[in-house]
Amino acid sequence: MDDTLEPLPYIRPTLQNMGSWNPTRLLPGERSGIVHRMDLNECPLPPSPKVIEAIRDHAHLVNRYADGGCPELTEKISAATGVPVDCICWGTGSAELLSNIVRLAIAPGDGVVAPTPVWRRFHGVFSSLEADVAHVDIRDDGSVDPDGMIAACGGKTKIMVCVTPNNPSGAMLSEAEVRKVAEKTPDDVLLYLDEAYYEFARFAGGPDGLAILQAHRKGPWIVTRTFSKAYAMAGLRMGYAMANNVHVINALRSLTGTFNVSAMSEAAALAAWEDQAYALRIQETTATERRRIVDGLEEMGIEALPSVTNFVSAPLDRPAGPVIQAMKERNIRIAGWAEEGYGHMIRVSIGLPEDTDAFLTALREILDAG
Amino acid sequence: MDDTLEPLPYIRPTLQNMGSWNPTRLLPGERSGIVHRMDLNECPLPPSPKVIEAIRDHAHLVNRYADGGCPELTEKISAATGVPVDCICWGTGSAELLSNIVRLAIAPGDGVVAPTPVWRRFHGVFSSLEADVAHVDIRDDGSVDPDGMIAACGGKTKIMVCVTPNNPSGAMLSEAEVRKVAEKTPDDVLLYLDEAYYEFARFAGGPDGLAILQAHRKGPWIVTRTFSKAYAMAGLRMGYAMANNVHVINALRSLTGTFNVSAMSEAAALAAWEDQAYALRIQETTATERRRIVDGLEEMGIEALPSVTNFVSAPLDRPAGPVIQAMKERNIRIAGWAEEGYGHMIRVSIGLPEDTDAFLTALREILDAG
Repeated sequence: MDDTLEPLPYIRPTLQNMGSWNPTRLLPGERSGIVHRMDLNECPLPPSPKVIEAIRDHAHLVNRYADGGCPELTEKISAATGVPVDCICWGTGSAELLSNIVRLAIAPGDGVVAPTPVWRRFHGVFSSLEADVAHVDIRDDGSVDPDGMIAACGGKTKIMVCVTPNNPSGAMLSEAEVRKVAEKTPDDVLLYLDEAYYEFARFAGGPDGLAILQAHRKGPWIVTRTFSKAYAMAGLRMGYAMANNVHVINALRSLTGTFNVSAMSEAAALAAWEDQAYALRIQETTATERRRIVDGLEEMGIEALPSVTNFVSAPLDRPAGPVIQAMKERNIRIAGWAEEGYGHMIRVSIGLPEDTDAFLTALREILDAG
Repeated sequence: MDDTLEPLPYIRPTLQNMGSWNPTRLLPGERSGIVHRMDLNECPLPPSPKVIEAIRDHAHLVNRYADGGCPELTEKISAATGVPVDCICWGTGSAELLSNIVRLAIAPGDGVVAPTPVWRRFHGVFSSLEADVAHVDIRDDGSVDPDGMIAACGGKTKIMVCVTPNNPSGAMLSEAEVRKVAEKTPDDVLLYLDEAYYEFARFAGGPDGLAILQAHRKGPWIVTRTFSKAYAMAGLRMGYAMANNVHVINALRSLTGTFNVSAMSEAAALAAWEDQAYALRIQETTATERRRIVDGLEEMGIEALPSVTNFVSAPLDRPAGPVIQAMKERNIRIAGWAEEGYGHMIRVSIGLPEDTDAFLTALREILDAG
């Protein structure tokens, strides 16, 4: 195996020496014990019983490709949102879609406007595409800064990435703020609204970003949502994109290919969509445990950012790295913020009541000890 | 909905007006009847009973992400091939991997050497990346031309795509030919060997391309294989890449992201890998029905290309388009070749005995009538 550190002529400059990063990895010691997995913003509840049934019913059919268009589910989402069926497409989670949405607009040197901090995958994609990124700081509450984003648009801006609720902060924009972004982002810039945590925002009384773009944006837009979070289907990889221009969706489909989503995931997502009562139960559990975590942090003198999502971020009075490591040694996995300048932040995903208990107890002990 | 045909400033030039192409689509009339789906090179047999069991056993766990590293399966593949575990990575089918393998090497204007005809997805990827592609005609038997490929390498070539067995032809390279490609492709060019139909080649007595590269190539290489075809798992999306350089794999992982493969697919692929007896049964069925199709075509005076795979291509004495359409009206789906100059070619995927019967009967009737 050749593991030279010299630049390799057949690998793009921004992809040299990437190292290996796998946040989903469970280490051997973790497999044997009980791990409180509170670092990946997964839903701690199993999927709906109807999803499990759909998976079991379709298991013998996976020798065939899925219909990558997911026609039945697409029709339901079209009916619910008013987005035409040919302006909706599917990806293996919204992660696959986000990579390719940026790709359809960007060649090396083209301009992107994006918030920072934001989910680290965005920065990986921008870097791999050699984009010229205008990083716009989020506001103190962790939400995207609408005025800063709009002001950052320039002549070479091809795409603006707006994320609400934002990750890793959990904070969302108000209806008026999304509307401002919709109206003031230049008409020749593709406005990409990532609503991976949309259902959580709605449950908390937040706005429907898609509906605002439909009503108020003249220029091009694209919105992504996912079944990974609010429908407890992270492991099945189903996200979708909706746009106001069929050419954007066709370009996106040409990048993802038509053989991306799995037959099983399609059947499961349809079952999940039909079981909104179960989705409500997920929301209620999340809200209850989120409240407990926020209150528990407050009792330790830690003020969490105002999250509406299935995760909470909070500043510690010390570097987060050693705390995260100490938690890990107690089989509690939480995350930090990757961006420079935020080394004191922790992000904890909402779990079951026993996860909340374990997290709060361990954090108190670690902070007291240290 | 804006469906202007003017170039859109926020979409890359090669992705304007893509149209919509979905070969996996079943039309309403097809859903109600019996469709002989012989156009997508799927396995007509269901997956192994052990795969079905694995899927059912893991259905309740899909609220969690899979370990994107697929550690258990990776160790098995490493043990079987000798490729180190950190030089193996996973994608949603080899389709996701191929897009990103080309991407890790190519920026607009960079050189690719590739056979033509080849699976049309390759050309979509090359075009989207604005690559400078040297198209090397396949040989009369449908196999890649090693000498032509080697001769086409030039100063700006970053990557050579070699496909054996080739699709849509089904023909493979000999051991000596793969070795020649391994040795003569310049050492600063990434040699990408697509072995999606590897297991079929081996069953037919063909070479192990990976082993040849391991033994004989000094420069960088990467090989892809898949569970879609020989393991009857097209609908579950599991492909893998193996390389001789960890940096190539790390760059690839950074492009695909670590949240790509599904938890279900990982469990299913592990079960499929362990059930080699079932994989052998798939090979035997495929070989038997392929023989019947080739013989049946010969009885009609049609000489098929020498395929070792789960599909067969053959030249008709007339344009293939109307024949494919007439077959479709009889609920038999077969494919053509997309490339210009090959409008008389048909490609039929190997099915069950009843699919073979239906295909041969219908083709004879259509050709006799026409």
